[in-house]
Amino acid sequence: MSGRLFVIGLGPGDARLVTPEAQAALDLCTDLFGYGPYVDRVPQRSGRTAHASDNREEVGRARAALALAAEGRVAGVVSGGDPGVFAMASAVFEAIEAGPPEWLALEVTVVPGISAMLAAAARIGAPLGHDFAVVSLSDNLKPWPLVLQRLGAAAGAGFALALYNPVSRARPWQLGTALDHLRNLLPAETPVVFATAITRPDERLEIMTLGDADPARADMRTLVLIGTHETRRIGRGEGLRDWLYAPRAARASA
Amino acid sequence: MSGRLFVIGLGPGDARLVTPEAQAALDLCTDLFGYGPYVDRVPQRSGRTAHASDNREEVGRARAALALAAEGRVAGVVSGGDPGVFAMASAVFEAIEAGPPEWLALEVTVVPGISAMLAAAARIGAPLGHDFAVVSLSDNLKPWPLVLQRLGAAAGAGFALALYNPVSRARPWQLGTALDHLRNLLPAETPVVFATAITRPDERLEIMTLGDADPARADMRTLVLIGTHETRRIGRGEGLRDWLYAPRAARASA
Repeated sequence: MSGRLFVIGLGPGDARLVTPEAQAALDLCTDLFGYGPYVDRVPQRSGRTAHASDNREEVGRARAALALAAEGRVAGVVSGGDPGVFAMASAVFEAIEAGPPEWLALEVTVVPGISAMLAAAARIGAPLGHDFAVVSLSDNLKPWPLVLQRLGAAAGAGFALALYNPVSRARPWQLGTALDHLRNLLPAETPVVFATAITRPDERLEIMTLGDADPARADMRTLVLIGTHETRRIGRGEGLRDWLYAPRAARASA
Repeated sequence: MSGRLFVIGLGPGDARLVTPEAQAALDLCTDLFGYGPYVDRVPQRSGRTAHASDNREEVGRARAALALAAEGRVAGVVSGGDPGVFAMASAVFEAIEAGPPEWLALEVTVVPGISAMLAAAARIGAPLGHDFAVVSLSDNLKPWPLVLQRLGAAAGAGFALALYNPVSRARPWQLGTALDHLRNLLPAETPVVFATAITRPDERLEIMTLGDADPARADMRTLVLIGTHETRRIGRGEGLRDWLYAPRAARASA
């Protein structure tokens, strides 16, 4: 069996953040699988078939790609951001583990990408410059009390937070409940960033405080960053966006 | 004042993981600052001055770059991995906040990079595919009890861990103590990865368990990944490296 599978991170949206390694992998693929909007980011070319699918079809999509790779084709599964952060890489390995034994011998290459959290942090300064935790607010595959437990453990120990999947049509209340939970643990003036469609033409960056953060300002394309009691905000004056950063030194936790 | 400052992530080492945006920023710079081995990664060219400095000179280096930018030059500060993860971006904003008011008007662009943790995770599968926490084991600027508190809080709540700065000549014992602390909280069979010099010619990837992880196998260039009780290890048989991944579904914490 000579097929290959690439799991490719396309970065947050800006083509200048697609790595040469990701581009080289895309160029090798005979078949591309992924959530429609991600597949659409890759220019079509003759000799390569695009297989777009719905956001919720992760394991089915992984299986289809693996089956083609096992037939000797070069299959690519694309993700926005980094494929290893709440994206397709886990689904691919889940499918391999549950699949036929011959899939174990496939050559699988995960090509990392610029993750949404790091792109968002770069836009605003360095809010993840010290210890931080990364949490998905989706309770599709995780009990909601566990989400709150993790947020509490991380915030209580002084981690900054990057929150993925804050809201969707099917999950409208989770972000508000999460922010309320954090308000019991962190000062109201803790900086919060809603970074939406980061690096894309309709990018929107909003710096707020935990006290006034309005969950209705977030959508499916929003990455939420929560600072700590040590996060610094540098005011720059009229017309210039403030910077947020985590100091390199940390004192005892709040 | 027309100068600019770029804080540029060079990724983990492989040139194919330098983004086009990072390359374009490097091309604009008249002056490059950074820790020697990172500056050395950027091919020299006429018209650009390299200012290499020691690893411990972060804020001094940032100040020097800002001063040149304020004179109208285009200064670049380079970091390995992502500049916003335990790297130069925080030092730059710290220098700005403590510096002359005119630095507030400088155009500062943080160019994200492929972080070591995501490159390491990609090599081994998808061990950071669910909630995870990122901790520096350096106690140069953070009290050691706070490091242990954060490790305990994160591991206790079921986060996978990415550990930066596990060891250096001046800090030989921290990783061993951290692993001992985690052994009190997590099962001995919890997967551990030491990823050293990731994506470089002398890359070394070792999958161990928490029970048998030997801190002497790590050096300054090692990124340590610690799984959870849910991390899956896929055995592939002779001659093929096993895969580790975090399932998309999470049950209650250990």
